[in-house]
Amino acid sequence: MATVNDNYLKLKAGYLFPEIARRVSVFAEANPTAPIIKLGIGDVTEPLPEACRTAMIQAVKDMGDRETFKGYGPEQGYLWLREKIAAQDFQARGCDIEAAEVFVSDGAKCDTGNILDIFGKDNKIAVTDPVYPVYVDTNVMAGHTGAASDSGEYEGLVYLPMTADNHFSPALPTTKVDLIYLCFPNNPTGATVTRTELKQWVDYAREQGAIIFFDAAYEAYITDPELPHSIYEIEGARDCAIEFRSFSKNAGFTGTRCAYTVVPKGLMAKASDGAEVELHKLWNRRQSTKFNGVSYIVQRGAEAVYSPAGQQQIQGLIDFYLENARIVREQLTQAGIDVYGGVNAPYVWVKTPEGLSSWDFFDKLLNTCYVVGTPGSGFGAAGEGYFRISAFNSRENVNEAMQRIVQTFKAQ
Amino acid sequence: MATVNDNYLKLKAGYLFPEIARRVSVFAEANPTAPIIKLGIGDVTEPLPEACRTAMIQAVKDMGDRETFKGYGPEQGYLWLREKIAAQDFQARGCDIEAAEVFVSDGAKCDTGNILDIFGKDNKIAVTDPVYPVYVDTNVMAGHTGAASDSGEYEGLVYLPMTADNHFSPALPTTKVDLIYLCFPNNPTGATVTRTELKQWVDYAREQGAIIFFDAAYEAYITDPELPHSIYEIEGARDCAIEFRSFSKNAGFTGTRCAYTVVPKGLMAKASDGAEVELHKLWNRRQSTKFNGVSYIVQRGAEAVYSPAGQQQIQGLIDFYLENARIVREQLTQAGIDVYGGVNAPYVWVKTPEGLSSWDFFDKLLNTCYVVGTPGSGFGAAGEGYFRISAFNSRENVNEAMQRIVQTFKAQ
Repeated sequence: MATVNDNYLKLKAGYLFPEIARRVSVFAEANPTAPIIKLGIGDVTEPLPEACRTAMIQAVKDMGDRETFKGYGPEQGYLWLREKIAAQDFQARGCDIEAAEVFVSDGAKCDTGNILDIFGKDNKIAVTDPVYPVYVDTNVMAGHTGAASDSGEYEGLVYLPMTADNHFSPALPTTKVDLIYLCFPNNPTGATVTRTELKQWVDYAREQGAIIFFDAAYEAYITDPELPHSIYEIEGARDCAIEFRSFSKNAGFTGTRCAYTVVPKGLMAKASDGAEVELHKLWNRRQSTKFNGVSYIVQRGAEAVYSPAGQQQIQGLIDFYLENARIVREQLTQAGIDVYGGVNAPYVWVKTPEGLSSWDFFDKLLNTCYVVGTPGSGFGAAGEGYFRISAFNSRENVNEAMQRIVQTFKAQ
Repeated sequence: MATVNDNYLKLKAGYLFPEIARRVSVFAEANPTAPIIKLGIGDVTEPLPEACRTAMIQAVKDMGDRETFKGYGPEQGYLWLREKIAAQDFQARGCDIEAAEVFVSDGAKCDTGNILDIFGKDNKIAVTDPVYPVYVDTNVMAGHTGAASDSGEYEGLVYLPMTADNHFSPALPTTKVDLIYLCFPNNPTGATVTRTELKQWVDYAREQGAIIFFDAAYEAYITDPELPHSIYEIEGARDCAIEFRSFSKNAGFTGTRCAYTVVPKGLMAKASDGAEVELHKLWNRRQSTKFNGVSYIVQRGAEAVYSPAGQQQIQGLIDFYLENARIVREQLTQAGIDVYGGVNAPYVWVKTPEGLSSWDFFDKLLNTCYVVGTPGSGFGAAGEGYFRISAFNSRENVNEAMQRIVQTFKAQ
């Protein structure tokens, strides 16, 4: 009989969001008139920018004329999009990144998972704790871990705690690691990384011959001009880092689907015979063989993000969500709750009050305020005692949710 | 230093299409006025159906209104699309397939590659020869093979020849295999499989506990009412087969990107402890973790394929390409060249005349007729002495190319 990939059987059943859904559903059944407000998931809510929509409608029309019809495009993405990305997202910030190093894809989730395809099975993996679960799960699936402990930590992974105790700045690993996942601005904590801190990571990776997977999906939310948007703003990063970006959170493309990954030429890793191999070539081969490019229509929409109108419109979206985050921070603080993040990120990371566990706070918020968030412990053991509130919602819902929380918690 | 996936280093450098491009480029440079006609690649040329375009424009508009905006959709695809697929592509043909068994994706190329993620490393793999190169390359990347021989055959794979000698009906494997790739109507040969033949494959797979990967990307080109469009038309196939479908070749979505894969519930494979595991659950986990669904806009376009107008328009496209194929068959036959396929498929598989090798015939066609096709040997050792001509082009180009070939070869 054909055999399965046993590593899948090590995965904890998709615990976090199904369990949230289950508890919300039980509550809603018992309280059918309760006006529940969901600030749990990291999904945008506001309309797609007009510039993107106009470009996509034109692209659909292009498809209706034999002369402008587009069949298979380059697996790496159209050059007109890659060039704008390289120029405006990198070169304009002084990063030495060229269009040929940009691989357009249908999602950063896909890319952060698929990137493991080109690496060996023997690499030691480091993730922060808490962490975006996809990094962990895809390593489990790829056979890079042992079994999970009761708290959900997988044997073989190196977890780097980021909590209030270390100001959400994870320490460098004390054991040797080969692949390091860093996400800044961070999901779920909303924490950022300074140039000095990021330089330490780059120096460490270069010394150790490690590769940093830098997830910058939330870079557009950076308001502090001193913070780096790209790891390539740091000297030496071309020799040790792959960067993931997305149009999901800046331009509201969560349902439209476009992202990209930068693999610098000359970035090397080792074959088992000791020879150095260029990762750009391997990723190009991976994408050419297992991917057929992003829809022409969607790529035209992404291109419009770089037009003057597109830039203005996405700034409007970002400002809107950041104002939501500011309201969440301000109101929760007024309610006597400690908050982190939410200044350069669309997530506010809450210290659960009264020493409640993440799930107990979840239940309390749901039962008393009809507000749904995400228990921090769902992102890793070091997330216990924390709670994520997302700024992705309407102003009305955010205001209403915060008003309820202030009333409930301030009174106590 | 981080290590790479060594298996990538076993891959023959993407030989076929770059080599074609190189020879065409050398010829074009030496003969700048020669009016080259390309019948090489399997890419559609005609405009996207109006029904799909109308639906996509509406979908883009939906994205512009907060009330109808779509963020993250289900990773498996929207139910309104999966239900239409299940009803019209399967249930209407008597196949017992439900919407929950359909996974919408951005391409059959991606799916046929990614499906290996959920299988073990110890499965014995069978492919036909000639074969769509993605099946082979993704197995090489996944470490399921040894090195390649000079003729491009990878150690460890079981190759099942399909040539004129066996009427392009590959024999059942004589050694035990676990995963079997079948593509009918076939790329590159244009061959089809009868119900009786397909029943033999299903019976064999069930006896052996093997899984068939059935690639039906070209099923819309079937004109013979006796031929099966889906493997699930065969009794027992739910217990042994995964089917891949695409909107690329029926609705011209090669640049728009939408496809789907059917994984029946209850289809099992074995864990290393001998326990049986449901593949539907593993694929669902794979897609939920490493994929974020297809663009809402594109899914609305795919849904329109199932409207009465959409059905009529895609039939128009298919008829157009099939008429091209008929012209190719007729004209080449008139030129004294043996042809196969092209009746229930958009590919005509040509026996090279005068005992020419595939590449010699390529050179001759290019130099004397300015026509580009694809050497059969590029699809596998058993493709030597054959040549693929694609029906995906304008009527004008097909007529012109065939006229040149008839003039050149008939005169000889």
